[in-house]
Amino acid sequence: MNKIAAIVGGGVIGGGWAARFALMGWDVRVFDPDPEAQRKIGEVVAGAERALPMLYDAPMPARGTISFHTDLAEAVAGAAYIQESVPERLELKHKVLAAIQAACSPESVIGSSTSGFKPSELQQGAARPGQIVVAHPFNPVYLLPLVELVPGDDADEPIFEQACDILRAIGMYPLHVQAEIDAHIADRFLEAVWREALWLVNDGIATTEQIDNAIRYGFGLRWAQMGLFETYRVAGGEAGMRHFMEQFGPCLKWPWTKLMDVPEFTDELVDLIAGQSDAQSGHMSIRQLERLRDNNLVAMLRALKGQEAAAGKLILDHEATMQQPLVDEVPLITVRRKVPVDWVDVNGHMNEGRYGQVFSDASEAVMTHVGADRAYIAAGHSYFTAETSIKYLAETLVGEDILVETRVTLGDGKKLRLWHEMKRAADGEMLASCDQFLLHVSLATRRSCPPLADVRDAVERLARLHAGASEGPAPRAPRDI
Amino acid sequence: MNKIAAIVGGGVIGGGWAARFALMGWDVRVFDPDPEAQRKIGEVVAGAERALPMLYDAPMPARGTISFHTDLAEAVAGAAYIQESVPERLELKHKVLAAIQAACSPESVIGSSTSGFKPSELQQGAARPGQIVVAHPFNPVYLLPLVELVPGDDADEPIFEQACDILRAIGMYPLHVQAEIDAHIADRFLEAVWREALWLVNDGIATTEQIDNAIRYGFGLRWAQMGLFETYRVAGGEAGMRHFMEQFGPCLKWPWTKLMDVPEFTDELVDLIAGQSDAQSGHMSIRQLERLRDNNLVAMLRALKGQEAAAGKLILDHEATMQQPLVDEVPLITVRRKVPVDWVDVNGHMNEGRYGQVFSDASEAVMTHVGADRAYIAAGHSYFTAETSIKYLAETLVGEDILVETRVTLGDGKKLRLWHEMKRAADGEMLASCDQFLLHVSLATRRSCPPLADVRDAVERLARLHAGASEGPAPRAPRDI
Repeated sequence: MNKIAAIVGGGVIGGGWAARFALMGWDVRVFDPDPEAQRKIGEVVAGAERALPMLYDAPMPARGTISFHTDLAEAVAGAAYIQESVPERLELKHKVLAAIQAACSPESVIGSSTSGFKPSELQQGAARPGQIVVAHPFNPVYLLPLVELVPGDDADEPIFEQACDILRAIGMYPLHVQAEIDAHIADRFLEAVWREALWLVNDGIATTEQIDNAIRYGFGLRWAQMGLFETYRVAGGEAGMRHFMEQFGPCLKWPWTKLMDVPEFTDELVDLIAGQSDAQSGHMSIRQLERLRDNNLVAMLRALKGQEAAAGKLILDHEATMQQPLVDEVPLITVRRKVPVDWVDVNGHMNEGRYGQVFSDASEAVMTHVGADRAYIAAGHSYFTAETSIKYLAETLVGEDILVETRVTLGDGKKLRLWHEMKRAADGEMLASCDQFLLHVSLATRRSCPPLADVRDAVERLARLHAGASEGPAPRAPRDI
Repeated sequence: MNKIAAIVGGGVIGGGWAARFALMGWDVRVFDPDPEAQRKIGEVVAGAERALPMLYDAPMPARGTISFHTDLAEAVAGAAYIQESVPERLELKHKVLAAIQAACSPESVIGSSTSGFKPSELQQGAARPGQIVVAHPFNPVYLLPLVELVPGDDADEPIFEQACDILRAIGMYPLHVQAEIDAHIADRFLEAVWREALWLVNDGIATTEQIDNAIRYGFGLRWAQMGLFETYRVAGGEAGMRHFMEQFGPCLKWPWTKLMDVPEFTDELVDLIAGQSDAQSGHMSIRQLERLRDNNLVAMLRALKGQEAAAGKLILDHEATMQQPLVDEVPLITVRRKVPVDWVDVNGHMNEGRYGQVFSDASEAVMTHVGADRAYIAAGHSYFTAETSIKYLAETLVGEDILVETRVTLGDGKKLRLWHEMKRAADGEMLASCDQFLLHVSLATRRSCPPLADVRDAVERLARLHAGASEGPAPRAPRDI
């Protein structure tokens, strides 16, 4: 399988697909008749380039290319994955899907971003119905992992499996929806809430801002990490889910929603909502709002990653597939990463504590390299840092690519000493240095002890290699900044 | 106004109220006829004691007491705030509210945790209707800031204002719902989604786990930080909210939800959902799930706090009211805090980078104390750290209370040198020390320069004070851990 993706139909969704594929190492071909497509997609890609790599504490794959095509057949020919994101009109989708199938390989996956149509509807009259699956993503496509994957009854099994594999490889979570249904799963909830929200605004009960606050200061936080049922399971307490349902069940009969009815979509209602939304958010441009949203999502996803929970766990698992083993060189390149938004302090640069974290990550990379990895730690031994001296030589800004070069300056029994130099990837400027002294410990006694033989040998081998290759750096005076 | 809160009715909600009030420095009196009330509330309070202080990077107020009462009149007499959280039956609420009003001060706030009843319903037949407001919180009450505050038409204005002030003072966000309506605002959305979810499970479209994943890997993350309308405003892109509504509007007429209809609440449906929930989460106890939920919420709220956004901004604003100015003593106590869940690494203890962050916070406290505060930074000057040497002397565990003692060892022109000792609050054991060298900088040139006169004088005064009071500590050798 090649790593070529064709994106048919641009806009915010198509642009998000293009960005995610390209940043995950795929070459992307875009077909979109909109004369502004290149500019619009370029803006989405710029946002994605800034935010997506911040989710990962591992180096990203080499970026793929993005090319723009005026000929649909040229764009899709030979692509392993094709994603259709044209407007939500069935006859248009049929026309575009037919043109795609006329030019693409029968082995390609054809995913549709449709929010509402069932796969059987998309497959009507297709040359190869089984090749077409619903692959419904969520905006911003480059940050949110969910994609609802609905194969439908006529799906080609190998193509469906291929779709799952490809989506996982680009960091998404394909949610296999077995039974096809209008609007799949998530949009049914969004539709229900949207309808209720329109009523609340229409009836003057709440403004758009009050509704947003009612969500983001309350149940939105619960849902972001547990969803609906697990949240209620916890709420049910010791008595469990059954008890919760018995309590909540009867409310269903109460007149708590207006959902049986559809509000009239009048100009007045549109004006009311657009006006309230302006009052709430009009002081920020869409670009500023997107930046704010992306920063919040990155920070929250990284927070969940730290807990190894919910969507953070997905990113952690994906990251594990991206980690490259260290190469035995002098110096070792122990960290390659981008500075994420949650590392910045009141001075607008990377907080000094995060330098310590980078050097901690660097020593963890060395530990993994010598066999003191997660399994070794789980079995009862580790290295603890006893002392660090860090010199801060230049400011490090959010979004910058950095790397750490590490030299083993001592590897003797339970003692391990590392010299780290953190550099800006773009120009090699040294940002900070760190002299770090670690001790091997038993996690049972929490006291120092010699490492197990394999680790000891690996450390001593590295120390010899590094002693032979360099003098060992002298401590530096802080530069006058 | 005294700081006494009466909690009438325990359980998960009443317990959450009790915990939040007590941890924010109020004395709490609980009335709950359940013989298990003390145990149940104790468990909620234990969870809150662990998690709530982790939201704050400032010392918490001195904890209030929690007492249990078998006499309702004794519990409510003289309390400034009374919260009713008894089961959702109107005649029971009327009875309890009448008993409360017979014993409490007419100036007290009486809040009701009701999910569904309107204030006018609760106020029916009351001695002083205007004293009763709906104050509807969200579980876990000790972490989620939202409380829907519905005064109703008969509300007493000073009591409503008092309710707002008190709820803000304990870190909550009182959302003023002007027009009363069944189920207020948030529960209308929860009800709509719950109903739709029951249909999806009932019809075999999705399992409880698939539904949770459809929420937490997708729109749940969006809602946690922006809510509904601002999310769609961004989705509308440059064309704005009006454009988005024109796109989404017509879908309302499509058959995307089953909400016009209520699913029959049969034993089969209850069994189906309880069984799926067991399959999804049954490997964890409710206590484990609560712990997981609280850890996730703390980490996400702290992430939003770092971005000064959404619910994180609320916590930041609340924290500002909790900060105490430094006292001019030797040593300065520059940090008092609890170690939050997001500071722990693979070894199960505080990551070495977070030690650096604590010492960075300690130096920021010194800066604020000498007048190099946020306003000074905004005006173009700051201190940057040039060098730190940290010795890690003992492990620091999640949830531990720590403090930092700081001595100014040099304050001369643009140079500032600090000696920090981080200690465990419980026993004073030294956990780490840090020798930190900072330089005063111009934020325009990003180069060092002398501080402005007021800051220079304050630094020199502190340095003289500390030189007179202590020898200045000698560097220490790393302890053999």
